[in-house]
Amino acid sequence: MTSDEEAELRAASAAHRLVLAPGAASAPELCEADVAFGQPPLADVLASGRLRWVQLSSAGYGGYDRDDVRQAFAERGAVLTKSSFVYAAPCAEHVLAFMLAWARQLPTALHTQWNERGWPQEAVRRKSFLLEEQRVVFFGFGSIGARLVELLTPFTKHMTGVRRSVRGDEPIPTLAFDDSRLNELLGAADHVIDLLPGTPATTRFFDERRFAAFKRGAVFYNVGRGTTVDQAALLRHLASKHVGAALLDVTEPEPLPADHPLWQAENCFVTPHSAGGHRDEGERLVQHFIANLKRFERSEPVLDRAF
Amino acid sequence: MTSDEEAELRAASAAHRLVLAPGAASAPELCEADVAFGQPPLADVLASGRLRWVQLSSAGYGGYDRDDVRQAFAERGAVLTKSSFVYAAPCAEHVLAFMLAWARQLPTALHTQWNERGWPQEAVRRKSFLLEEQRVVFFGFGSIGARLVELLTPFTKHMTGVRRSVRGDEPIPTLAFDDSRLNELLGAADHVIDLLPGTPATTRFFDERRFAAFKRGAVFYNVGRGTTVDQAALLRHLASKHVGAALLDVTEPEPLPADHPLWQAENCFVTPHSAGGHRDEGERLVQHFIANLKRFERSEPVLDRAF
Repeated sequence: MTSDEEAELRAASAAHRLVLAPGAASAPELCEADVAFGQPPLADVLASGRLRWVQLSSAGYGGYDRDDVRQAFAERGAVLTKSSFVYAAPCAEHVLAFMLAWARQLPTALHTQWNERGWPQEAVRRKSFLLEEQRVVFFGFGSIGARLVELLTPFTKHMTGVRRSVRGDEPIPTLAFDDSRLNELLGAADHVIDLLPGTPATTRFFDERRFAAFKRGAVFYNVGRGTTVDQAALLRHLASKHVGAALLDVTEPEPLPADHPLWQAENCFVTPHSAGGHRDEGERLVQHFIANLKRFERSEPVLDRAF
Repeated sequence: MTSDEEAELRAASAAHRLVLAPGAASAPELCEADVAFGQPPLADVLASGRLRWVQLSSAGYGGYDRDDVRQAFAERGAVLTKSSFVYAAPCAEHVLAFMLAWARQLPTALHTQWNERGWPQEAVRRKSFLLEEQRVVFFGFGSIGARLVELLTPFTKHMTGVRRSVRGDEPIPTLAFDDSRLNELLGAADHVIDLLPGTPATTRFFDERRFAAFKRGAVFYNVGRGTTVDQAALLRHLASKHVGAALLDVTEPEPLPADHPLWQAENCFVTPHSAGGHRDEGERLVQHFIANLKRFERSEPVLDRAF
């Protein structure tokens, strides 16, 4: 937290006792707290008797996504919120950045510039393609997907979501994980975007069978979790160009070791788990917490709620 | 032209005599023609007595943009159309591709992948920024600018155009070249997009004085013509980081020689005049001509008219 961010937080919580715990909060501090913001250790949260509201500074809440945790929160009337609103815009811009970079063959241009400095005008033009009217499928659909739909709307209307529980309020047609039309959908998609959280149900969701169902040359994006992909299967399909290209912002493990084959596949592009980041990230996290703190003080429903 | 494109053209012009002239059309062919499509030599066009309509296969019509040519066309009741509609989408996508690639630090990620294979997560996140609410200025405003406004609308409403003659029908506030507010506008812009045609009036439009008026760290894009930029001045401002980065799809000369300093500036990125290209370019050019041919046959106004 910068000094500006801390000052903003202090001003907004002047009516409360604010304890800044560098690193992880210790158990005694959490036991006296009504509200926690950050990444408090789950065991200490469960042990504390007072906590009524925990706001995680992450987009996901994978560690808390357990029945016993839900039950413990429910029993004490506590709520869990997350910061997915803060990460929606940068993650959506990150995915679109690579969609367009690949469509415009920017990696080829950069490789040329950093190596032979040729002028492969005709080859680059012939390999470029328009995003206009292309087909996009999202796996996992929350704040990031919603923002990406807004950004893609000027390009295409062919967007479909797939998520664990369809709510009915999604801005695009959305299917459940077990829908029988899933393979048909994968076979028609030009872009498959993995926004899945890391849970037991999503482990290696993208496996040999799913990649085999892709349309030849489709592009795969992962800004969810590395564990949702069978990386060996992905590598095989990248090598055969059945999967045309992949952008992986998350991998298993992270950091990706320097000798890992994902670095070496010519059509695989890795960013260092940076999709959610930007220079105003800390400020936006604090502002998101403060906005919710005001709602909490007035007993209004808090935003970005997990449960 | 592929065989499919030729077949489409033949079918659509069955009521006419179609002459395919590989390379440049020769003068005798043009003298017998009512309509020419492609890049006919200007001297032969002026010498032909019959031509009533010329459709250029390029976005610009720089070579035809002369008073004597306008007069010659006017005297014989002939019209000149161009193919800027075909190049609008790819050029707009190309500019947005680099806007987002730079905002998300994709060049750094690619450099890391192709060299040390590290994991500069914090550095990349801190340098990334959102396009949301950023300020964009277009120099030259036609089909490409109009499409780019559509694509940028979900990101920002802070867009301004600057063009030779303001028509009043632009979708964003637009100033003339000689407007006194130009420096103020440049000083506030995060992104300056050069879409200018190559004419005597635009030669080195972006010179020392204009780059000095930029806001520090602004990004410059050129998908217009290389001649519109004083490249030595740009290089000085890139070296000092006053101009944060540049994407040049056009340079002077083209191809850019391998030892040219524009290749070497770490914050200058060159694509090989590929912004307007894509794999369906030929098909779209033929379809654009056919759509106009139908209008021409029915004596309806043709689209994408230069004069």
